[in-house]
Order: sequence, then C-alpha cells, then structure tokens
Amino acid sequence: MKILISNDDGINSLGIYALAKSLKEIGDVTVVAPITEQSAVGHAITMKAPLRVVEHYINGEFFGYAVEGTPADCVKMGIRNILKSPPDIVVSGINHGSNTAINIIYSGTVSAAREAAIMDVPAVAFSLTSHISRDFSFAAKIAQDIVKEVVKNNLPLGTCLNVNIPAVPENEINGVLLTKQSKSKWDDIYEERTDPYGKSYYWLTGSLVEVDDNLETDQFAIKNNYVAVTPIHFDLTDYKTYEEMKKWNIERKFVE
Amino acid sequence: MKILISNDDGINSLGIYALAKSLKEIGDVTVVAPITEQSAVGHAITMKAPLRVVEHYINGEFFGYAVEGTPADCVKMGIRNILKSPPDIVVSGINHGSNTAINIIYSGTVSAAREAAIMDVPAVAFSLTSHISRDFSFAAKIAQDIVKEVVKNNLPLGTCLNVNIPAVPENEINGVLLTKQSKSKWDDIYEERTDPYGKSYYWLTGSLVEVDDNLETDQFAIKNNYVAVTPIHFDLTDYKTYEEMKKWNIERKFVE
Repeated sequence: MKILISNDDGINSLGIYALAKSLKEIGDVTVVAPITEQSAVGHAITMKAPLRVVEHYINGEFFGYAVEGTPADCVKMGIRNILKSPPDIVVSGINHGSNTAINIIYSGTVSAAREAAIMDVPAVAFSLTSHISRDFSFAAKIAQDIVKEVVKNNLPLGTCLNVNIPAVPENEINGVLLTKQSKSKWDDIYEERTDPYGKSYYWLTGSLVEVDDNLETDQFAIKNNYVAVTPIHFDLTDYKTYEEMKKWNIERKFVE
Repeated sequence: MKILISNDDGINSLGIYALAKSLKEIGDVTVVAPITEQSAVGHAITMKAPLRVVEHYINGEFFGYAVEGTPADCVKMGIRNILKSPPDIVVSGINHGSNTAINIIYSGTVSAAREAAIMDVPAVAFSLTSHISRDFSFAAKIAQDIVKEVVKNNLPLGTCLNVNIPAVPENEINGVLLTKQSKSKWDDIYEERTDPYGKSYYWLTGSLVEVDDNLETDQFAIKNNYVAVTPIHFDLTDYKTYEEMKKWNIERKFVE
C-alpha cells in the first residue's frame, strides 16, 4: 500500500512523525508536508509564487519532502510530481487541536485530505483534540486501524474522512462513532492592543459556542470521549436552497 | 440598507471599486478588504499573527478599510469591529476571473461570502469570468439587481450565493440562471524552472477539464453567456456516504 502523508502543523511536528511511524507498519510511506506551520490556512493554494521542495532529515535520516507552501500545495505536489503514480491513500495529520464543526472550513489538515479527494484519491485527516498534549500514541494506533478500513471498504471517489480523536488516556476512550459536522460556531473577539509606536493591532480570539446535544455530531462525540469519523465532500451546492430559489423569479432568458 | 463589501483582489482593485460605486446607489456601503491581493487563499484566517487595519483613500477621499489579512479576516473584522451592528448583506468581489466549479474551494472571494454566511449574514460573491477585462460595468449593474433580490427574498441563514458573470458585452449576455457547482476540475501541472543559483522551483499551472453538458452547472452556464447563480453552504458532511458507511462496521462502543 502506497501512502502519502501531509499535515498543516509542518514537517517538523510531533503529530506527523507519530503518524508516519505508525503507517510505515502497513505501507510504503512518503511524507510531503509544509516546511512551516500552516494552521488555519484553509484550502489555500500557492499560485502567485513559485514552490520549492527540500529534503527533510531527522537525525541524519531522510524523513520526507518539505514544501514552502500550504497543505493543499503539498498534496498536489506530492501526487503530481514527487510520487511516480497516485498513492492508494493520502493521510493528513495528526493535527494538534480538534477540527470539528466549523473548524473543518478553516483547517489546513482537512484541506490536505480534501485536495486528495478532489484528485480522486481516498484520504483521511486526523486531529487530536488538544493543542497541548504531546501523546500521539493512541491517535497513531487508531489512525492505522481507520486507514486499513478505508482502503478495504473503498471510500467513494470525491469523499474524504475527517477524524477527531479525544486527547484522553486510551482507557477513557468510549469508542468510535460515525458523525456529521456539528453546527457549533465561533463567537469571535478581536482583542485590541497597541504597539510600541502607538498603533493598534488585533488578535483573533473567541470561544466555540456549542449547540450540540447528540452523539451524531463530531463535536458532541469528542466531548463524550468518542473518536468521531465524519465523511466530507467538496460539492458546496446548497441543493435545498437551489430548489427554493426557483420561486424567487431570479432566472431570466434574454434570448430564446 | 447597510452593506459590507470585501474581495480577494485587494482594496485597490478595479472590481471592488466598481462594486462599491454601484451598491452606493442602493445602500450605505462600508468597504473592508485586504490590503494586498489574496487570490486562492481559500478560507484562510489569520490566527498566528496580529491583524492591522488602515484607512484607504482614493484621490484623497475615504474609500474603506484595508486589512493586512485574508478575505475571511476582513469579513470577521468588518462585522465584529468596524461596523457597530451587523450589515444587512455582505457582498464580495467583483473578482477578476471566474469562480465556478472546483474554484469555489480555492477562492478567497467566495470565502468572504461564506464567512458572512457562517456569521448568519446574507452574502453574495461576484466574479467576472476574465482575468484581463477591465470592464466591470455590466457586472456591477447585475450585482446591484441580485443584491436587491437577495435582501427582498430572505436568503436562508447559512447560505450564500456565488455569482459568475460572463466577460462579454452586455448585448451578448443570454440571461441569468440558477446553477449548481460544476464537477469540472483542474489538470494541474507543476512547471519546473531553475533559479540563477541552480536550484529548482515550481509554478502551478494547468487547465480546467470541463465535464459539463447542461445549463444547470455554473461552468456550462457561463460558457454559454449566462450569469450563473449558485447557492452554497458550509455543511461539508457527505450525508450519502455517511449512510453507506454504516455498513462498514467502523463504529464501536467500548463501554455501554
């Protein structure tokens, strides 16, 4: 099994190292990841600047390819240029911090998986629900299990999985659930500060306003110590509104 | 009517100027846009760096607020900090270049509108299907019409419209159609070059592989000189695959 690994925390992060180590037990792993942290870059791609790729070594041993770009760039570059043929699966992560609910939209980790889905390659994004924990051992183990399931079951083309793993000791994990994207959103606050030259600047902060009350949503599942597995796609059409808008009388033909 | 305008081409672009001029005829316009071009940034937000906001003048006259950030940053900052209360509508564009098909995923213009939808504010993104044309006159006129329709008809919360306008003379426009996101995708190529120091670098290029054959898709509609209006949302859950995956036996509960 040929596996391409990327992430958004950068090639030097603990999460990608744990993921690569675990997946090397079941396949032929190639790592292509951003040279610097790219959190919250969403599905950005680099078009107005050239990309560079450098080999990345850990303790003098080749680990993977570092790209001066975004997670989506890494997946494109990995599939189109670095690998000689498409991988069997693209795996992104393990992210430091959860990517549930609306964070799916902002996440570079998820966008790496979604870019693979766009390229008709099965993909999974993994996130550990803590920015602090340095223990990726259970997450790396469950990642291996889920990757095997995805390859065995043939994930439909155009779909990828977004997996969030509670950052609790393994014996506190309650199970694995299929989930949907929660409707919880951020209450943003811009904290204003003044620089030494008297000019204002702003830090984005805020809190997630949780609206979930059942285990079918990713956010509620992780809060209840379940691994949450959400299938996502990239067709953003709102079909329900599409039908409703037919009543709007917005369509018109100037010619027949 | 209170209107917040943003874009991804930057506050100094011709498209945002034409849009602001047109919408000032029907409402109270505030412009909050990136200080530099932010094409293809997707739904990136700035979290690891502070944001700065400066007033932007055209011919000595105040035009709007320039943000050292992404389109999504501008909408968040505009709604949370610059305006005293939420606008009636957020309008993004007019983008130089089409945002149909898979480009919806990569587009900063569309992400600005989507960020507004996330914040429960109605929103529309407008794109002119040319990177070259400097004539935004028809696009600015149709934008005014569509903004009026959106406010009149109460777009559902969480949905925004993605509007693409063919870059042809007004008398060649065949009409306005409700559309869906086309499944056309890019065949990416990384063009390799060598810098003066002997190191390789890569430019992303490629062509859109068009798979559409009916006017219900945005890409086919614009190719046939129709304005394409696609409702989009931010629930990325693939509900069909969610149901299919119930047969996978991936779910497990370790405790009862």
